[in-house]
Formats: sequence, C-alpha cells, structure tokens
Amino acid sequence: MSTIKLSSDALKFENNQLFLLNQTQLPNTEEWILCDTPTKLYDSILQLKVRGAPLIAIAASLFIGKYALQIKNRKTIKSTIDYLISSRPTAVNLQLLLQQHLALLSKETEFKNHLDLAIQHFNEDIELCQKISRYGVEIIKDNDIILTHCNTGSLATAGNGTALGIIKSAFKTKSGISVYVDETRPLLQGARLTAWELSKNKIPYQLICDNMAAFLMKQNKVNVIVVGADRICLNGDFANKIGTYSLAVLAQYHNVPFYVAAPYTTIDFSCKTGESIPIEHREPNEVRGFKNQNNHIYWSPESSKVYNPAFDVTPSELVTGYILDKGHFSGKQLKSLACINQNTLRLSPNVTSIQL
Amino acid sequence: MSTIKLSSDALKFENNQLFLLNQTQLPNTEEWILCDTPTKLYDSILQLKVRGAPLIAIAASLFIGKYALQIKNRKTIKSTIDYLISSRPTAVNLQLLLQQHLALLSKETEFKNHLDLAIQHFNEDIELCQKISRYGVEIIKDNDIILTHCNTGSLATAGNGTALGIIKSAFKTKSGISVYVDETRPLLQGARLTAWELSKNKIPYQLICDNMAAFLMKQNKVNVIVVGADRICLNGDFANKIGTYSLAVLAQYHNVPFYVAAPYTTIDFSCKTGESIPIEHREPNEVRGFKNQNNHIYWSPESSKVYNPAFDVTPSELVTGYILDKGHFSGKQLKSLACINQNTLRLSPNVTSIQL
Repeated sequence: MSTIKLSSDALKFENNQLFLLNQTQLPNTEEWILCDTPTKLYDSILQLKVRGAPLIAIAASLFIGKYALQIKNRKTIKSTIDYLISSRPTAVNLQLLLQQHLALLSKETEFKNHLDLAIQHFNEDIELCQKISRYGVEIIKDNDIILTHCNTGSLATAGNGTALGIIKSAFKTKSGISVYVDETRPLLQGARLTAWELSKNKIPYQLICDNMAAFLMKQNKVNVIVVGADRICLNGDFANKIGTYSLAVLAQYHNVPFYVAAPYTTIDFSCKTGESIPIEHREPNEVRGFKNQNNHIYWSPESSKVYNPAFDVTPSELVTGYILDKGHFSGKQLKSLACINQNTLRLSPNVTSIQL
Repeated sequence: MSTIKLSSDALKFENNQLFLLNQTQLPNTEEWILCDTPTKLYDSILQLKVRGAPLIAIAASLFIGKYALQIKNRKTIKSTIDYLISSRPTAVNLQLLLQQHLALLSKETEFKNHLDLAIQHFNEDIELCQKISRYGVEIIKDNDIILTHCNTGSLATAGNGTALGIIKSAFKTKSGISVYVDETRPLLQGARLTAWELSKNKIPYQLICDNMAAFLMKQNKVNVIVVGADRICLNGDFANKIGTYSLAVLAQYHNVPFYVAAPYTTIDFSCKTGESIPIEHREPNEVRGFKNQNNHIYWSPESSKVYNPAFDVTPSELVTGYILDKGHFSGKQLKSLACINQNTLRLSPNVTSIQL
C-alpha cells in the first residue's frame, strides 16, 4: 500500500484513494466524496463538485495516477483520459496535465510513473500559486479595494489560489486591504466559495450582485480588479467564468486596472485567439433557480428558455496585465513564453521573468 | 357604497377596497392582498409586493382616495401621505401623484375629490402606457432581438407597461421579435415577472443572468436595449433598477442603441442631475440568498457583509433616446418639457411631441 498522503483545502489523497470536497454544498456542509471511478470524477467535474481550472486538472491527474497502478492497461487508461478531458471543454489545464499522462503512456514506462507525475503536478501547483501571489502583490497598494469574480482560491487550486491567492497575500503584507466579491451567477461561486474563503482568512469583504460592479466603479469604490483564467491564448485573449468579459469592459470604461492571474498550465498557445476557445453551455435549470443538497427552487417559469454559457472570452486589449508564475506580462509579451513543442505552442520551461 | 371598479393585472379596486397582487410570490402563486391600512401599503411597497414606479404611485393614490373618504381628517391624511412617500425614496412617481393629493388637501375641497383624482391617475397611466408603446415601436425593426432589465410591464403599471409595453406592441406589429431578459438580481424581477409576462403573451424570450448581457452584445446578439426608469432628471440622468447603469456602459461599448421608456410621471426636473437622486439601500439578506413564501435559502455565509443598492443612476450621455408619452426625446431635448411650477420644474401639460 502506498504511503503517499497529499492534502489541500478541497482535495485529499491517502491510502491510494482520492477524496474531493463537494463544493456544491459549501458553505453549508463540508462533505468529502470518495472518487473511485472515472464516472464519479467526470460527474464531479460536470456538476462542479470539484472546480477551478487548476484543481480539476490535479484531481484528474491524481485519479489517473492511482488508476494506472490499479488497471495496468494502457488502452483503458488512454480511453479514461480522453473521457475525463471531455468533461470540461473550456479550461485547458485538465487537457495539459492529462496530455502529459498520455505522453508517459506512449513511452510505455512503468505504471507507477503516473502517480509520480500526479504528485509532481500537485506539488508544482502549490509552488505556482506561491509565485503568482509573490508577483501579484506588487500590483496592490495599501488601502486598495479589490474586486474579484468567481472563486480562484484554495478551492480552485492545490495551493493558495491565483487571483484570490494574490488577495490573501496582499492582506498579509499591505494595510487596509478590502474586497468586493461578485456573487457570480448562476452557480454563485463568489457568494458561496470566495465569501467562505475570505471569512476563514478574516479578510474584510462585501458581497455584491454581479450587476452592481459598474455602479461601484462609477463611484470610484474599486481600485483594482483581479480575476483568474480557464484558458489563455497566444494573443492574450482568455476564457474565464461568465461575467469576466463584462467586468473587463466596465473596468476599461472606468479606468480601473484589470489583471488576470494564472499558472502556466492555463496557457494554451495552440489557441491563437479567443475565437478558438470552445465555450461550454450548461443546463437551463441553473439559471431558472438555485439547487443545493436540501433545496431546488425555480423562481422563473419552468418553461423559460435560457442562455447559459459557463464561460466568456475577454480580448487581450482589455487586460492591464497578466500575472503568471513567471512574472508580469502584457498581452504582447505572452508570445515570448512560447516555444514549439510537439506541434503545439507550449510554455517554454526555461523562460525567466519578464517585467512589464 | 361606491360602485367604482378598477382592475389591472396587478391591482384591483372594488367596493372601496384596494387589492394588490403579491408580486413576491410570482410566478408560483397568484395571491391577492387586501390593502386596508397605511402600514399594509407601506410594507407592501417596502417588500416589493407591489412594485414598479408607476404602479406604486397609483396604488398609493387609490389608497389615499378611499382613505380620505373614510378618515375625513386633513391632518391624518397629510401625515399618511408623508408616510407613504417615505416608502420608496428613489422612484419619483409616488411623490408626484401624492403631491397632487397634498395640493387638493391644501385647497380644502371635498374628500371625495381624492378618489376622483386617484381614478384619473389610474386611467391616465393606461393611456400613458399606450402612448409610450405607440412611440416606442418606431425604434424597433423586424427581427430585432431586444434586451430588457427588471420588469416594466403590466405588473409595473396600470396599463400595458413602459419598456415591456413597447416590446409587447412590437411583437404584435413587427415580425421575428425576440427578447433577452436579464434575471435582475437580487430580487429577480426579470426571471420571475418579465419571464411570466412574456410567457403569458407568447413572446419568444431567453432568460439570462445579468453578467451574460455583455457576452451577448459582443456576439452581436442584441440589436436594441429598452429599460424603464424610476426618476428622470432635468439633464436626462435617470435612476432605475440596479444593473441598468452597467447595461448602458456595455451598450455604448458595443454600439447597441440604449433607450429609456417612461411616462411623464417619472420625470423630476427638481433634480438637475443624477447626483441629487437618493438611492435606496436594502437589507443584506436579499443578496445573501433567496426568499419566497415557501423558502428562505442563504447560499453565502450568513455573516457576509453586503452592498445592496436597489437602484443606480445612468448619465444621459449613455442614453440613445427617451421614449415618453409625449414622443421621442434626446437628453438635451428633455429640458424643453420643463416649465416653472410651484418652485419646482415639472412637465408642462401643453407640450407636444418633439421628434429626435
């Protein structure tokens, strides 16, 4: 039996078993799910029990790590990887990390190497978050009021978070930091998860409905906006939780700096522009009402047709800067990170920090 | 006993009794409330059981109409009027209509004149809606996809509605009309009420979360935006349901025409600019979750601090045009409607239509 033990706020790996915190039940209930079949993981991703572009990738990598040892059949492992990749078309981290397992498979190495790779992914993400936070605090000043969208903290990564990781670091190292949290309809990751994380960290915040952000900016009540990303393209266009594009346009109109924080695992240089990013559309009931363990309420007519894209794409010209684990970048500088690798433009492992 | 009988989709007056449709229970339950004390009306306005700037004004006018006959005490009537005006500080229609009752009081006319005035207000609002619809359809083309916010239909007026009245008329007179409905957090008037009205009128619509409107505009999926107003100032700045300002900025960025539809009772020329409009802030629990007759769910931590303005102010430079019962106006043309009256700039009753 393996003695490997990994633990983050939203994921546990011990005795070769993967447990996920069921984020749909937060902040009311902390329920851990044993994730022991590919279907369970697929459904957990689809239902957003596990979410956050970096975290779903690590969960899937760890699952494949233990599954490879258990199944020891390359064909089955490959088809399981393909199946898991299909669970979240927009976020690219899942694809990137699982492609590394595919590469291992094609090399026909020992099955235990998949678990080693997964552990490496887990530990790397913690480190990537730390680096992002370190670069990110440089853009935050004392007394800044920061607005953020969705959840990008320790519930979305193996580490401290991306955008929310920066906010946590800023709270520790600067004075007078406070936060406005977009509730982030329809699935309310801001209201449920970010509010919960900020509460736990005793960081002052106010919850708002997504449609209030503009009025705050008009009153000069927002100094800076930081959001995460689910996929960043070669030209800097990026996909993120629906509502991000709206914020970016509003930020430009009000001259509020707008930053994107992400690890290199979110970069997909095979997408030249945002046009190539597939957008996941989700079921109408998410918009018709609200559902958790105990309740399912419809507040609109049940026959209502619904438009429900889970993500939107923000063009790079609306982004003040990208805060990556490699440093600060402008949209145009992102290209400098690219190198040709297996027919896909991927981040060069050798690149060093480039300051804006 | 009076034989007066008035009826609209959301308000009934018969046997000298005022009944209001409890809009907080829509679309699930159609519950009518007997509104027989000032406190009941005040609370109904505060809790949005009756809502919509024109409709609350008419409900209050009818209440004062029957109350004056019942109480026959000028001092009590006056203090009741002051009390009712305080229930909704942002919308000005309530103030305007009740000020006309105050004027009657000061003339010491017969008490029954208050009911006559109220009936006049009721009937006038139906006519104002018709005129707004007639002017409004001129801006709508065949196959237009219209986006609207909050509810401005027969649940917000005594008649067919303002912005939503235009949409209903356009659906009847043009071909291929369809609608995107902002759900309008926190109280979901779009998801609950506008969706219900559109369903009843068999007008094709799709419900969206407020944060999706920008992404639709980016994809050229919105041809025109029409919203209502709670107070329009001398310079054209106007207050409306929170989220309206956000839409107006997004509309300008995407070159989508943005229209405001309102009756003259929404105009308050004593406010020179939007700066003078008082903004009602509401209780945090509205944002922390959702409440109706059967359910009260919190989805954010109960300790969350909340920013919850019920309205925002949109500057006139973001408005393509104002559709009033007197015709089409630009922001600068609104002034032409003003005449000095009792130290307050009010709409001249003699003004005729001015085309843009």
